[in-house]
Amino acid sequence: MKVGILGATGAVGQKFIRLLQGHPWFEITALGASERSAGKKYKDAANWIEDVNLPDYVGEMTVLECVPESFKGVDFVFSGLDSSVATEVEGSLAKAGIPVISNAKNYRQHPNVPLLVPEVNPDHIELINTQTFTEDGSGWIVTNPNCVAVPLSLALKPIYDAFGIEALQVTTMQAISGAGYPGVASLDILGNVVPFIGGEEPKIAPETQKLLGSYSDGVITEPKYPVDATCTRVPTLNGHMAAVNVKLAKKPTSIDEVREAILNFKNPIADLGLPSAPKQVIKLHERINYPQPRLHADQEGGMQLHMGRLRAAEIFDISFVCMAHNTIRGAAGGAILNAELLFKKGFLKSS
Amino acid sequence: MKVGILGATGAVGQKFIRLLQGHPWFEITALGASERSAGKKYKDAANWIEDVNLPDYVGEMTVLECVPESFKGVDFVFSGLDSSVATEVEGSLAKAGIPVISNAKNYRQHPNVPLLVPEVNPDHIELINTQTFTEDGSGWIVTNPNCVAVPLSLALKPIYDAFGIEALQVTTMQAISGAGYPGVASLDILGNVVPFIGGEEPKIAPETQKLLGSYSDGVITEPKYPVDATCTRVPTLNGHMAAVNVKLAKKPTSIDEVREAILNFKNPIADLGLPSAPKQVIKLHERINYPQPRLHADQEGGMQLHMGRLRAAEIFDISFVCMAHNTIRGAAGGAILNAELLFKKGFLKSS
Amino acid sequence: MKVGILGATGAVGQKFIRLLQGHPWFEITALGASERSAGKKYKDAANWIEDVNLPDYVGEMTVLECVPESFKGVDFVFSGLDSSVATEVEGSLAKAGIPVISNAKNYRQHPNVPLLVPEVNPDHIELINTQTFTEDGSGWIVTNPNCVAVPLSLALKPIYDAFGIEALQVTTMQAISGAGYPGVASLDILGNVVPFIGGEEPKIAPETQKLLGSYSDGVITEPKYPVDATCTRVPTLNGHMAAVNVKLAKKPTSIDEVREAILNFKNPIADLGLPSAPKQVIKLHERINYPQPRLHADQEGGMQLHMGRLRAAEIFDISFVCMAHNTIRGAAGGAILNAELLFKKGFLKSS
Amino acid sequence: MKVGILGATGAVGQKFIRLLQGHPWFEITALGASERSAGKKYKDAANWIEDVNLPDYVGEMTVLECVPESFKGVDFVFSGLDSSVATEVEGSLAKAGIPVISNAKNYRQHPNVPLLVPEVNPDHIELINTQTFTEDGSGWIVTNPNCVAVPLSLALKPIYDAFGIEALQVTTMQAISGAGYPGVASLDILGNVVPFIGGEEPKIAPETQKLLGSYSDGVITEPKYPVDATCTRVPTLNGHMAAVNVKLAKKPTSIDEVREAILNFKNPIADLGLPSAPKQVIKLHERINYPQPRLHADQEGGMQLHMGRLRAAEIFDISFVCMAHNTIRGAAGGAILNAELLFKKGFLKSS
Repeated sequence: MKVGILGATGAVGQKFIRLLQGHPWFEITALGASERSAGKKYKDAANWIEDVNLPDYVGEMTVLECVPESFKGVDFVFSGLDSSVATEVEGSLAKAGIPVISNAKNYRQHPNVPLLVPEVNPDHIELINTQTFTEDGSGWIVTNPNCVAVPLSLALKPIYDAFGIEALQVTTMQAISGAGYPGVASLDILGNVVPFIGGEEPKIAPETQKLLGSYSDGVITEPKYPVDATCTRVPTLNGHMAAVNVKLAKKPTSIDEVREAILNFKNPIADLGLPSAPKQVIKLHERINYPQPRLHADQEGGMQLHMGRLRAAEIFDISFVCMAHNTIRGAAGGAILNAELLFKKGFLKSS
Repeated sequence: MKVGILGATGAVGQKFIRLLQGHPWFEITALGASERSAGKKYKDAANWIEDVNLPDYVGEMTVLECVPESFKGVDFVFSGLDSSVATEVEGSLAKAGIPVISNAKNYRQHPNVPLLVPEVNPDHIELINTQTFTEDGSGWIVTNPNCVAVPLSLALKPIYDAFGIEALQVTTMQAISGAGYPGVASLDILGNVVPFIGGEEPKIAPETQKLLGSYSDGVITEPKYPVDATCTRVPTLNGHMAAVNVKLAKKPTSIDEVREAILNFKNPIADLGLPSAPKQVIKLHERINYPQPRLHADQEGGMQLHMGRLRAAEIFDISFVCMAHNTIRGAAGGAILNAELLFKKGFLKSS
Repeated sequence: MKVGILGATGAVGQKFIRLLQGHPWFEITALGASERSAGKKYKDAANWIEDVNLPDYVGEMTVLECVPESFKGVDFVFSGLDSSVATEVEGSLAKAGIPVISNAKNYRQHPNVPLLVPEVNPDHIELINTQTFTEDGSGWIVTNPNCVAVPLSLALKPIYDAFGIEALQVTTMQAISGAGYPGVASLDILGNVVPFIGGEEPKIAPETQKLLGSYSDGVITEPKYPVDATCTRVPTLNGHMAAVNVKLAKKPTSIDEVREAILNFKNPIADLGLPSAPKQVIKLHERINYPQPRLHADQEGGMQLHMGRLRAAEIFDISFVCMAHNTIRGAAGGAILNAELLFKKGFLKSS
Repeated sequence: MKVGILGATGAVGQKFIRLLQGHPWFEITALGASERSAGKKYKDAANWIEDVNLPDYVGEMTVLECVPESFKGVDFVFSGLDSSVATEVEGSLAKAGIPVISNAKNYRQHPNVPLLVPEVNPDHIELINTQTFTEDGSGWIVTNPNCVAVPLSLALKPIYDAFGIEALQVTTMQAISGAGYPGVASLDILGNVVPFIGGEEPKIAPETQKLLGSYSDGVITEPKYPVDATCTRVPTLNGHMAAVNVKLAKKPTSIDEVREAILNFKNPIADLGLPSAPKQVIKLHERINYPQPRLHADQEGGMQLHMGRLRAAEIFDISFVCMAHNTIRGAAGGAILNAELLFKKGFLKSS
């Protein structure tokens, strides 16, 4: 399939380009970015920051404006757009009949737009059928969650299914790559912790609740639980760590019952053969000082969710830590997996 | 007063030496360390890691064995001993009539030993009178808390006094200096988070509860509240950060009432003129991304407690972050402040 | 004396403000910055990044435009201006009769402007008398060198005086604070080395040669020697390290003769009582893995030059490393020391 | 072929295990370590620090003592032994008829032992025929160079061949992984530079000269040139960076002539199909701030040599920087490539 990328010069856009190299189903044929970049060769417009070489053929592509005309020839687009422009640009492409698989936050809470993590809520893709961007349904939007909501929803899914959630407390230690490029100034974070990240904490409740919600007849019914969250930045490169406490609706008889629920999680996309899907989506570590961002964020292509330190709690019922690669599983890689699911399910069609 | 230091070659011992340079009341006259070091000049026995020069006269001192005979001539000792030997060594010195002001954990939960933070529970020093190391009361032990319990108790004190505590949740991001030297291997922590620190989490409940307890007639009555804690190591140098959630016994009408309680905290040692006491013991930051270890840990000589992000919570009543220098306020500096209080209150006497 | 600061909101400007707190001779009375900041309170215009609190009275000062009228009431100004505007602004103030003590590079190579490190070339201040900004000589400019040329010139001065220099090879490992704020993106430098810093390498030859030059009758005669330099950025906070190799004109009989020349360096300003002068300007470390930025950059108020690893070389005659605090000794602190010398020598007069 | 690993629990040993997973020719069948580990399961004896999972079958293997009897069944061994024991252990295995491909320094300067980098001096393997560990020649030793000499020799080879080397100056910025595990204490290196690494500087001259030497009739004739080197440790994870200056015997007409010599380097093993060989062994970067350890050390499986900043010098003829992964190209990966060459050339035979 022919694929376009919106916001191709940014950090998320670069990650899309990197991850799509050698992809068996998707081929990049159009790159869109801001007016400032449009018309330039990609290699001149982008400050390439990935630790693999910029593919030559991508470097030679001419950057296009982010308007529907630029993407006539593609089958769908990935969007790594900044939220300041995503509402308009993504909407205009959808109206022009181009499916948009977006990492931006703008449409995540739209009632007709799936907020999708394939292993968590694959059935939510049916929401696409309720979208009205085009009369024939050819243009639509699917989003992936915030880079913290992704690992949380993956970790919480088997727990929620088995026990329900009554209250959720989260403290995150987030990597610098989460702020894009140039992002966090080195003077602010080298040997430091910054105990606030703008916009992160308020996303945790609505995004995890929409993800854990049940779909029926075009409507998602969400669980509601209180959330207390503190999001901090630490000097790690990739991998958002979260220390999590959960109060459960149904009390487990022991922590082992919770462990079993996690270990027995039945991955709903396990048999679909999606190229970017991790073989084991949840890795529950038993070594007491695991997981660690530097050791585990890149495992299974950066698509695995790592849990550890699962234990009984006092105020809450259970405590654990979880971690996933924030720009792969939590952004571009997650969006690509969404596209793979949508392709497999017939929502994406080659023109 | 003549002062000895137990464990003088270790990281805490070095901090004692550094902080006591130019002290108006205390002079180092004896340095004790392990058998391996005893008999050597201090400069040859210690691998000096402080970022000020080792004072020449200290470098030339001969390291002594940690036995009572070595410390006959001192008025009291500071102990930076490892917990593997502190029970015996500190006990033997106390029995020999030498007051021990210790940073080790061994006697912290002993019912007759004050666990002391001068701004939190200065009246607990009366417990000394219940100790029986010597018949004449000349030998005794006072301890300071774990480097996480120190900032927590300082932050919680005004909140506890005004509202009581029903439940406490803490996630820490602790600096590498907390593990001593050589401590944490750089391969383990550079660009990483380690989500476990041995022995830290279980200390939070008993130490903060003893610190907040009320003293009467030789007995401390402690509040009891459940604690859920996750302690992590991050690549910062100094300053343990904690993200804290508290459920209060008496509900405040608004977060401002909590803010007022903190701002109006009446420091019980404010008028004592203790040389190491910070002018303002609790600094409540209003800038949303403050406090930060690198910016604030060294303020007021590393003896200040920094709070920030005070806000209303959902599951809990309030959330905030707090941070203090772990090897100064949380270790050697705290012990020195304890000694200053004990001197001012007449417990330490020059021979 | 009343002092103004040009470029007061930038990283160097902030360092000026910090270092001038409590200064016995100089008082900040005017703060200038870009048009964008002018008219605002300083606390609103500046993103304060120092690890001490912004002094309240400074925070309340109104930021002025960087034009002569703004600085009528001051006795002189410090300039932390960006080089893009320093030529015009500094020149206009000098022409208006206001002495400018600048950290900017613009006038460093001007034949009538002293490039000054007080311990290296204090007699160069006589060049001021050759300046023609004003008829009465009331307005003039003095500069301090680049943050690499400062430690190099201090380390080379005793060596140059004793042996002469035939060739100089330098590889630097420079701290992130040298790039200002926001400066280096954390994604570029965390756990990384960047082997290039724009504009640094070409300054080493002309600045060290001008500093080591001899002054006579209004003219500086400079030594000429070839320089090969590689300047790199490393993830340190403060303190530029340089690995240096020198070919000497006169061959020493042994490395000890070089060591003696350094140890016996006669500091020409030792007896002037300048408040910011380090007691010992050159510290030659004997411990083989010293100096280190994190341990030594802040010693003696960040004004000391640290040398170490002095040894005989093969291609060159001697090798050593040197290090100094780049934003104190190498920038704002150096400029303040310049002002102190100029005040002591009668060039700065209170109005 | 059946492969044993000496020093299997150490950092280099773990890297051997990691890199040999899925190797088309070599299979690990024996793991040797110190007496302390011998008899335990590998997973219990080793503190696994790699960022991929320990393979299950390796974890279950029983660690053996490093004596010849333990390795009867293998075709050859890789050695990641500490230099304190390598002389004896490696010698004893060679005498027992077991080929040893070693990363240890002990035999590197032995006149009959090849110090081998396949792209630099593949013909040196003929030296094996001069070894006398066994009468039938079945036991022998081949070594790979120090982790700094590897990138230097790769970068210097095309330059040496085209122009000869008269003098070499090197300043390194070395990664923490070079010191093994636990290796460098985080308190020593976080936000710091340590300007000395024990034993590194003296290896540069003899190892690069042996590598660049010409083999004939069982003898290597080495070029001799003076070397001035300073080796420093910086807070990077992997990838030793070196800033290099070279005086050439034959003067190039321009820097482009040097560039051409590098770009036209004819890799002598290019056509051998060795599984671990990089496709492009020398990557000469043109982007001025490249190469960087974090971006490039892992490229081509960590086996590529990265050069950059090639330019004319003043004292020397040329300056450049070079960088390679120190524990892959500079240690375990280099040794595996040596084994692959030796297998291809018929020196290693399956039993």
